[in-house]
Amino acid sequence: MVIDLEQKFSNLAAHLKRSAIRELLKLTQKPEIISFAGGLPSPDSFPIEALKKIAVDVLTEEGAEALQYGPTEGDFKLRELLLDRYRKFGLELEMENLVISTASQQALDLLGKIFLDAGDHVICGLPSYLGAISAFGSYGARLTGIPFDEHGMRSDELRETVKSLKEKDEPIKFIYVVPDFQNPAGMTMPHSRRRAILEIAWQYDILIIEDSPYRELRFEGQSQPMFYELDSSGRVITLGTFSKILAPGFRLGWLIAHKDIIDKFVMAKQTADLCSPVLVQKMAARYLESEDFEKNLSRTVEMYRKKRDIMLESFKKHMPEGVTWTTPEGGLFLFLRLPPQITSERIFDRSLEHNVAFVNGAVFHCNDCGHNTMRINFSYPEEELIREGVKRLAEVITQAISEAK
Amino acid sequence: MVIDLEQKFSNLAAHLKRSAIRELLKLTQKPEIISFAGGLPSPDSFPIEALKKIAVDVLTEEGAEALQYGPTEGDFKLRELLLDRYRKFGLELEMENLVISTASQQALDLLGKIFLDAGDHVICGLPSYLGAISAFGSYGARLTGIPFDEHGMRSDELRETVKSLKEKDEPIKFIYVVPDFQNPAGMTMPHSRRRAILEIAWQYDILIIEDSPYRELRFEGQSQPMFYELDSSGRVITLGTFSKILAPGFRLGWLIAHKDIIDKFVMAKQTADLCSPVLVQKMAARYLESEDFEKNLSRTVEMYRKKRDIMLESFKKHMPEGVTWTTPEGGLFLFLRLPPQITSERIFDRSLEHNVAFVNGAVFHCNDCGHNTMRINFSYPEEELIREGVKRLAEVITQAISEAK
Repeated sequence: MVIDLEQKFSNLAAHLKRSAIRELLKLTQKPEIISFAGGLPSPDSFPIEALKKIAVDVLTEEGAEALQYGPTEGDFKLRELLLDRYRKFGLELEMENLVISTASQQALDLLGKIFLDAGDHVICGLPSYLGAISAFGSYGARLTGIPFDEHGMRSDELRETVKSLKEKDEPIKFIYVVPDFQNPAGMTMPHSRRRAILEIAWQYDILIIEDSPYRELRFEGQSQPMFYELDSSGRVITLGTFSKILAPGFRLGWLIAHKDIIDKFVMAKQTADLCSPVLVQKMAARYLESEDFEKNLSRTVEMYRKKRDIMLESFKKHMPEGVTWTTPEGGLFLFLRLPPQITSERIFDRSLEHNVAFVNGAVFHCNDCGHNTMRINFSYPEEELIREGVKRLAEVITQAISEAK
Repeated sequence: MVIDLEQKFSNLAAHLKRSAIRELLKLTQKPEIISFAGGLPSPDSFPIEALKKIAVDVLTEEGAEALQYGPTEGDFKLRELLLDRYRKFGLELEMENLVISTASQQALDLLGKIFLDAGDHVICGLPSYLGAISAFGSYGARLTGIPFDEHGMRSDELRETVKSLKEKDEPIKFIYVVPDFQNPAGMTMPHSRRRAILEIAWQYDILIIEDSPYRELRFEGQSQPMFYELDSSGRVITLGTFSKILAPGFRLGWLIAHKDIIDKFVMAKQTADLCSPVLVQKMAARYLESEDFEKNLSRTVEMYRKKRDIMLESFKKHMPEGVTWTTPEGGLFLFLRLPPQITSERIFDRSLEHNVAFVNGAVFHCNDCGHNTMRINFSYPEEELIREGVKRLAEVITQAISEAK
């Protein structure tokens, strides 16, 4: 009897969707396309030469450990170096507060597993990082979105939403935030906004997931305190990653949290992958303590700042009236808003015909809004291609606006 | 308000347990202890020199791709090479039937996620691999164990159990088997037993997970067909891994299955870690197509065969009457059975005092039996230490038997 799989899959499997972005990226991989669609670091940021030497050193000096199973909590030295780095920024943590994850996506997934029951609410931004929406949704969570202003998630709207859900006795597990250079919108929350959101979490007893992949990629302005630093109640979980400061191909990140959360996370990680890849953990540790690390990070920040500037200039030069965009102080993305009568879906195909690609902003909205927005990445394409791509995109948008009149 | 985490964790979190083995391994890591407890490959099996060259080659020739995000399905070339290898063994597969996983543990976990609802039955061996029990249990599955004979899981007992569960209308999702050199018991199922189990799966419409980490580590005897080869109904999912034929520190495995299962698996993997570590995938691909691979594998098989022989000889020489053990045709483990009046828990502490360690067999039994059994690993300890360790263990057992009289 040939198997009928549909009646075999679990309830959780019904929540799984093909990632809209992954599918779209397949369309945009033709070499002639200028892609603002991905969320990739520039390959020019990868310290290839340094890593060659480090790979040989690790295999020579500690090959037997680097190729063996490692501790679920992560490589001891790597964890120590990450603690040192937080200490340098003024945050004192214990070893029991930090665990290595197989990049931030695993952290999001396992936090979903250990905290979310079907029907729990997760509060997120309008818009929000798609990988987080998918991970939480895959455990049956209901995503509830909060609109943004120029400082990110609005705390007044958050308070209203939380209050109204709580009055209906609806369970709220997390507030999910990307406080620095948010993906996809590019906004950074000032200290006061962080504080206001945290106070709501305190008052209504809700956890906060602070996803912080871009924090070290600040081009200008003052660094704002982490939610983790502002809290003393144990309810903030902060995620970091090597994907944007070293190499996404390492699949390495970490989280810091209350020790009881770390403890439960480690149990979930044991069943998920036993441990993160060991060779690359040891390589990341050596890189983190080398001089190259800070130098290369500064170089990368400078490169991305310049690319952002070129993009902003090109927008100013080419975009028709009625189109607005965010000006991120760091990170990889900015967010474009079209006049309300134009949907970005409508111009997506025509943009592809003109060999330029972006991501429709609607995929980042859990409430099916944002159809007139688009996410634009500036870290990956080369400078000349940014200029040319924006020009092409502006032409397509200009034409769509004139047709819609 | 300081957070009260206990009321925050999910229903799934309640199923998570600290791995009994991981905790125990921490006890056995003192250098003076001869450990038969772990499940580690010998570091002598790691091709460190070959990997140094390969790491440099990958970073030189394809560094930008090796450090970037990769496809969720896995590195294309690595998947092709794995398909080639199956083809060499007579199994024709399409690309859509194979996906890379972050080692077998991720495969077990995500198969749990996409197939298991709380209360579903998973049929496993008495004993079974602990990581599988934990992964399935973490989705609320009920584990139902089937006793073994010298050929592994008994098909008559399996038929009775399945029949009785089906009569009570209980949902059964998988039969979980490790057909070659089973962990922990060391048995290999002959063709006829595989066929008998598969017929039960056909008759009662149950999926089979064939976990196959040791298949290529055969010391002697005839290779038996994979469940995957014997089935044409699409219900067998087979897991492979680089952990025992290259390096567990790479965290790389794969699964082969019906394309609709692979499809759902890929969606689950997108939310779990986006993709497996790319640098080590590209390293594994180059190693797999190099001459070193088959040479090193033969060398490893020979090394483990010799270690098994030394262990069996030492058992014969030192173990008191009433103690029996399995004689595995391959793999990493054998299983020791004490006289029924002795529990291995009882002698565990005394063994540690004599600086020798093993794993209590009961942890591999989902029905809390097997207290007079122990799992013994022979791949990791050096030859001389195998001799000495068995001697010490035999002394402790001999003493326990004489005290129990």
